[in-house]
Amino acid sequence: MFSECCLPCPISLADSSEIQKAVAALKSAQNPLIIVGKGAAYSRAEDNIRRLVEDYGLPFLPTPMGKGVVPDNHPLCVSAARSSALLNADVILLLGARLNWILHFGLPPRFRQGVKIIQVDICAEELGNNIKPVASLLGDVNAVTRQLLEQLQKSTWKYPANTEWWNNLRKKIKANEENSKELASGTAVPMNYYTVFRCVKEALPNDCIIVSEGANTMDIGRTVLQNLHPRHRLDAGTFGTMGVGLGFAIAAAMVVKDETPEKRVVCVEGDSAFGFSGMEVETICRYNLPIIIIVVNNNGIYNGFDEEAWTNMLQAGDPASIAPPVSLKPNARYEQVMMAFGGKGYFVRTPKELQQALNSSFLDKAMPSLINVMIDPQSDRKKQEFPWLTRSNL
Amino acid sequence: MFSECCLPCPISLADSSEIQKAVAALKSAQNPLIIVGKGAAYSRAEDNIRRLVEDYGLPFLPTPMGKGVVPDNHPLCVSAARSSALLNADVILLLGARLNWILHFGLPPRFRQGVKIIQVDICAEELGNNIKPVASLLGDVNAVTRQLLEQLQKSTWKYPANTEWWNNLRKKIKANEENSKELASGTAVPMNYYTVFRCVKEALPNDCIIVSEGANTMDIGRTVLQNLHPRHRLDAGTFGTMGVGLGFAIAAAMVVKDETPEKRVVCVEGDSAFGFSGMEVETICRYNLPIIIIVVNNNGIYNGFDEEAWTNMLQAGDPASIAPPVSLKPNARYEQVMMAFGGKGYFVRTPKELQQALNSSFLDKAMPSLINVMIDPQSDRKKQEFPWLTRSNL
Amino acid sequence: MFSECCLPCPISLADSSEIQKAVAALKSAQNPLIIVGKGAAYSRAEDNIRRLVEDYGLPFLPTPMGKGVVPDNHPLCVSAARSSALLNADVILLLGARLNWILHFGLPPRFRQGVKIIQVDICAEELGNNIKPVASLLGDVNAVTRQLLEQLQKSTWKYPANTEWWNNLRKKIKANEENSKELASGTAVPMNYYTVFRCVKEALPNDCIIVSEGANTMDIGRTVLQNLHPRHRLDAGTFGTMGVGLGFAIAAAMVVKDETPEKRVVCVEGDSAFGFSGMEVETICRYNLPIIIIVVNNNGIYNGFDEEAWTNMLQAGDPASIAPPVSLKPNARYEQVMMAFGGKGYFVRTPKELQQALNSSFLDKAMPSLINVMIDPQSDRKKQEFPWLTRSNL
Amino acid sequence: MFSECCLPCPISLADSSEIQKAVAALKSAQNPLIIVGKGAAYSRAEDNIRRLVEDYGLPFLPTPMGKGVVPDNHPLCVSAARSSALLNADVILLLGARLNWILHFGLPPRFRQGVKIIQVDICAEELGNNIKPVASLLGDVNAVTRQLLEQLQKSTWKYPANTEWWNNLRKKIKANEENSKELASGTAVPMNYYTVFRCVKEALPNDCIIVSEGANTMDIGRTVLQNLHPRHRLDAGTFGTMGVGLGFAIAAAMVVKDETPEKRVVCVEGDSAFGFSGMEVETICRYNLPIIIIVVNNNGIYNGFDEEAWTNMLQAGDPASIAPPVSLKPNARYEQVMMAFGGKGYFVRTPKELQQALNSSFLDKAMPSLINVMIDPQSDRKKQEFPWLTRSNL
Repeated sequence: MFSECCLPCPISLADSSEIQKAVAALKSAQNPLIIVGKGAAYSRAEDNIRRLVEDYGLPFLPTPMGKGVVPDNHPLCVSAARSSALLNADVILLLGARLNWILHFGLPPRFRQGVKIIQVDICAEELGNNIKPVASLLGDVNAVTRQLLEQLQKSTWKYPANTEWWNNLRKKIKANEENSKELASGTAVPMNYYTVFRCVKEALPNDCIIVSEGANTMDIGRTVLQNLHPRHRLDAGTFGTMGVGLGFAIAAAMVVKDETPEKRVVCVEGDSAFGFSGMEVETICRYNLPIIIIVVNNNGIYNGFDEEAWTNMLQAGDPASIAPPVSLKPNARYEQVMMAFGGKGYFVRTPKELQQALNSSFLDKAMPSLINVMIDPQSDRKKQEFPWLTRSNL
Repeated sequence: MFSECCLPCPISLADSSEIQKAVAALKSAQNPLIIVGKGAAYSRAEDNIRRLVEDYGLPFLPTPMGKGVVPDNHPLCVSAARSSALLNADVILLLGARLNWILHFGLPPRFRQGVKIIQVDICAEELGNNIKPVASLLGDVNAVTRQLLEQLQKSTWKYPANTEWWNNLRKKIKANEENSKELASGTAVPMNYYTVFRCVKEALPNDCIIVSEGANTMDIGRTVLQNLHPRHRLDAGTFGTMGVGLGFAIAAAMVVKDETPEKRVVCVEGDSAFGFSGMEVETICRYNLPIIIIVVNNNGIYNGFDEEAWTNMLQAGDPASIAPPVSLKPNARYEQVMMAFGGKGYFVRTPKELQQALNSSFLDKAMPSLINVMIDPQSDRKKQEFPWLTRSNL
Repeated sequence: MFSECCLPCPISLADSSEIQKAVAALKSAQNPLIIVGKGAAYSRAEDNIRRLVEDYGLPFLPTPMGKGVVPDNHPLCVSAARSSALLNADVILLLGARLNWILHFGLPPRFRQGVKIIQVDICAEELGNNIKPVASLLGDVNAVTRQLLEQLQKSTWKYPANTEWWNNLRKKIKANEENSKELASGTAVPMNYYTVFRCVKEALPNDCIIVSEGANTMDIGRTVLQNLHPRHRLDAGTFGTMGVGLGFAIAAAMVVKDETPEKRVVCVEGDSAFGFSGMEVETICRYNLPIIIIVVNNNGIYNGFDEEAWTNMLQAGDPASIAPPVSLKPNARYEQVMMAFGGKGYFVRTPKELQQALNSSFLDKAMPSLINVMIDPQSDRKKQEFPWLTRSNL
Repeated sequence: MFSECCLPCPISLADSSEIQKAVAALKSAQNPLIIVGKGAAYSRAEDNIRRLVEDYGLPFLPTPMGKGVVPDNHPLCVSAARSSALLNADVILLLGARLNWILHFGLPPRFRQGVKIIQVDICAEELGNNIKPVASLLGDVNAVTRQLLEQLQKSTWKYPANTEWWNNLRKKIKANEENSKELASGTAVPMNYYTVFRCVKEALPNDCIIVSEGANTMDIGRTVLQNLHPRHRLDAGTFGTMGVGLGFAIAAAMVVKDETPEKRVVCVEGDSAFGFSGMEVETICRYNLPIIIIVVNNNGIYNGFDEEAWTNMLQAGDPASIAPPVSLKPNARYEQVMMAFGGKGYFVRTPKELQQALNSSFLDKAMPSLINVMIDPQSDRKKQEFPWLTRSNL
């Protein structure tokens, strides 16, 4: 589709002494953890990382855009125990992930004091940021993972499956999953986030590309929606940039159009996030890209709300007179924006309506659609152990 | 509404020797012309400029945002003979207007070789740009116009009403107006630009605030829609910035809301221009601002089109396969974007439908509306003597 | 010498109502003060400001580069009572001077609480900075001063010569001058700053151009060396930029070369300041510019010093081992740098040697010279009432 | 001397398939060439590069700051046939050198059309600039050179010593050296560049650090003065930045002061280059750094000169009136600038005086010195095959 414009990306490898240090640290771990970042996805390291995880029995945790390098439903994935895994690991192997705010800078109170970190990164300037690594592996993530495998194969070491670490992680995963399942099984209308994402999850083909932006929508969606393939998730990224979702979805749809036309692009948007560049549905319709946009619409309420103010606002003749500046117009019919340009629009309030809208959207392979999902404005994320932006206490 | 945050703008006056030079040059003119820029509007010079125009019988021409300082329907306004007035004037008084590309840099072939220019500007760095003025009047436009009036009052001079210059300008104005009238009187469907703007002009209250952006829509609309009050036009400005229209309309509506709630804000948008920030209708609806948006919709065709390609595009199964990148989705229903957020939407194809939609919109004083006006994709501006971006031949 | 490249600077005047406010404030003053800034020099306002000062009996104070607009030796000049004048004035007329750090932001504790300030400035953005003026006179300083004169001439008001304000100022001036005279009369060797500047002052022709940079050298030199003509002082300016002195001196010498070859350029440098671009003596010699550079050499001691450390440093075999990083090489023979390129060099330690070197330098009208004046490293500025960078207590 | 502030630089290696490609290309070469850049010096690759050169009999060429990684007097060094080596090589191994203007962008007419280039660089973005390499070796130069050695050791290949390529290079080297020797042996006074550099070369200890800036002085000096150790040359660098020499010399002298006090820093400056920051001799003297500054003084003539103009200038009463702006003051006594601050100064005109001054300077291990060497203003570089800034003809 595109003519060659530059050389293939050159590959570099880590120094063998650092490889040895890294493997020694891994073997010494009581509570090892692999964190798989989007650098791993970019370097196409999926086969080698999967071997590393499986052959040596190591728990792994993907970052948002590292999801799918090893499938999210893999038995060694500990995403459902994220906070606990980060906090209690004693040796962490960072594969193309960076210690910025997304990973709480690698510092207490979210990480254990004295945790040993092995960094694998393509960029020398990233090594040693915030923490002092026990091994600095500068190079291509895929090539370096292969080096780690070769070094590990020299011994018979394997991390045991029945350790206290695994027991604790599994207990935590089970508790969290049951908690989520209970929230997801709710049938009350208006729906909560977890019910919505359960329905979406059930409808998604294994190979679809998920684009997402928003606050709760992106955060909760990321924990529920699974990626089974690498490079199949695009979201607001390290800087949380809003307004990128529809552009990403269009780009992804153009790429799959010729190469894998059976793949679908699903764009999961908060209502506020959709507002940033919602007019891009014109482009989607003009090029007839069969993108499915799901707007999880909590009626414009950002950051929780006050019951009484809400009731007043809905009853008042002039909602603008009391609407706080960061809230949006209640009862916005985003699906009609799509319909204005010839796409399909669905307005759904119940799990059943949502399931039907999803089914229709996936069946219609030649038409963009937008599903406007009304949820309970009071719906919120389940309680977290730490606030998102926990600062270091150092 | 707002508390005082800074001192009132200090006023400065021009040097009296430059005032004398300016008046001497004006009096010596065979073909005088006053150009009224947005600087005149900002300095609230309307009363003094009107006296200058009327007391001395001088033809004047407003720049886009200088429209309304003296009403567009004033008998001494020569907007309808713009090219001719610029080309043949021998002395030009620039009141807060700048010799940038909008005024063709003050140079041939759009201006007469050797034209004498009197500059009045608040910014010293603007004086002498591109041309060498016969008088440089640095100061507040209103205060300097008062100085000019005081100097003129010292003699009995007045520019005669029956000169060849006035005869030529009036002839040109009449010819241009008849040409426009003919275009405007067309009843063919789809409509052309001139028919649309005739209907809009007839419906507009005298005191409404006109916001506009687009290419042909802004350019033609500016020649037809009249401003009778200063500071009642907001458009894409000197740099032709797209995407500003809805933000300007919201700001204007917030200002008039408390002070002059009977005034209406009308936002005249090309379809491409609307696409830049069309999602702002959500804000308009949330605050229930009774803005009237008119989208002049030539079906997404930018910059003329090829008959055959157009026919093919409409007939083809996959328009995207032939649509040029700068065209938009045909038959876009922009009014539904407004309706999605609770505003009124109108889809109109005939002059009668347009008139009805305008009447309803103006009657409904508590509701935003969007009128999507389908016009002939072949409609274009009437032939101009010069292309818009004529370069200097110097 | 240079061909015309741009229009003459356009002149603007202040609004007459502000002129009236300004004059009313001046007339109401018990303790009036005029501050003459470099804007007054740039606008060539010397004749009008002198009339304002003399006709109305007003005390004035120049800023560093405003010196000479009215001669420093004028009986109404209160430079020798600067701190007292600033602190006790109740109405201040700022003529092209700005309320930045050089004027202590116009705020207590250096200014009286509630002082009424009349600002005259060519730049609208400067009006109202830090303080709220009682009158804002936007325009050319010379033209505005003429407006003030015209308004003042409408009444018979004149500020009396025998007020308590004048008595206090004169008392302060006398005390300060006696203090300086005593310091200046010292004959001890090594000399102090005041002795050096007395000799320089006595030798300077009335019309010479003084360039200066340094810390104590520039600050003390400014209080002692008099400017009797406008635009005859160039120094480190508002931002205290070091390294500009020799470049300024070369530029000044090139300008006077053809126009007024009898004028001399004298460049008074601290030893540290000279180090920034001392190699420019090569250019001075190459073009044979008869600049006189006076390096006031306190042996490299910056910011006072510790007697014992100094003694140790001079005795030690390896001065570098104890020299603080901001001090310079003791006993540097800067005059030899000039001699290296063919200019005249003088090394002086006593008042008499200094006088002889100055005499020779002024006599030799075709040769650059550098006088390296050794002074007491302990010499400092006389005690000031306020530190230079007094902050506002608001 | 300095406390640890960051991690040791991480080391990365090249991909083994690229190593194989690189070695295959090298083995296939008829006219191989190694270019050793300053990246090789920074990565401390001297031992491995020397083994590569010696074990495989490969001709090498250092870039200006790559000099000394392998000693300049090594029999396999082809610096004296630089143009010919670059032009005729068919396979080039770039070790930490970049294809910018210093290496003529790797393009004809300075390089052979179709030359195969193997790039070794620490920075991925450099690979493939201007040319398309046959192998891209991303990694630390030292580590990658070791990889190349390991791969080469797998076979018995060695580049033969008696090829036509070596014969041609040796012939060219001999011719160039004889040409230089003839120029260097001149005893005429004023001296030419080659005579000066012969004397300097003979006086330089093997381990001294050479700092250099200037035009002809830097260019010719680089070809004559030898570096036998890596990281012992600092010059104006890729961007030809003037004014850095004395600062570099001070920094180098501070580093060697404690670690290897027997090493001397020699700073070879053009007279124009010295003028940029000549006042830094004050710092040199203050810290008593035993730097030897050699100013190669062609009397201020930049870029050749016109015999007659020169004669006139020297005879004229006012040289400034005819001196071109880029020339300097003739007969400048730069050594006196050093003496002004207590250092030693030498003014030399003959080879003998130069030798004596060098001897004294090297003997005096506790004192800075400056040798001002007067040369023939007509002296120029010997004729080059290509102008320095030959552009590509592509």
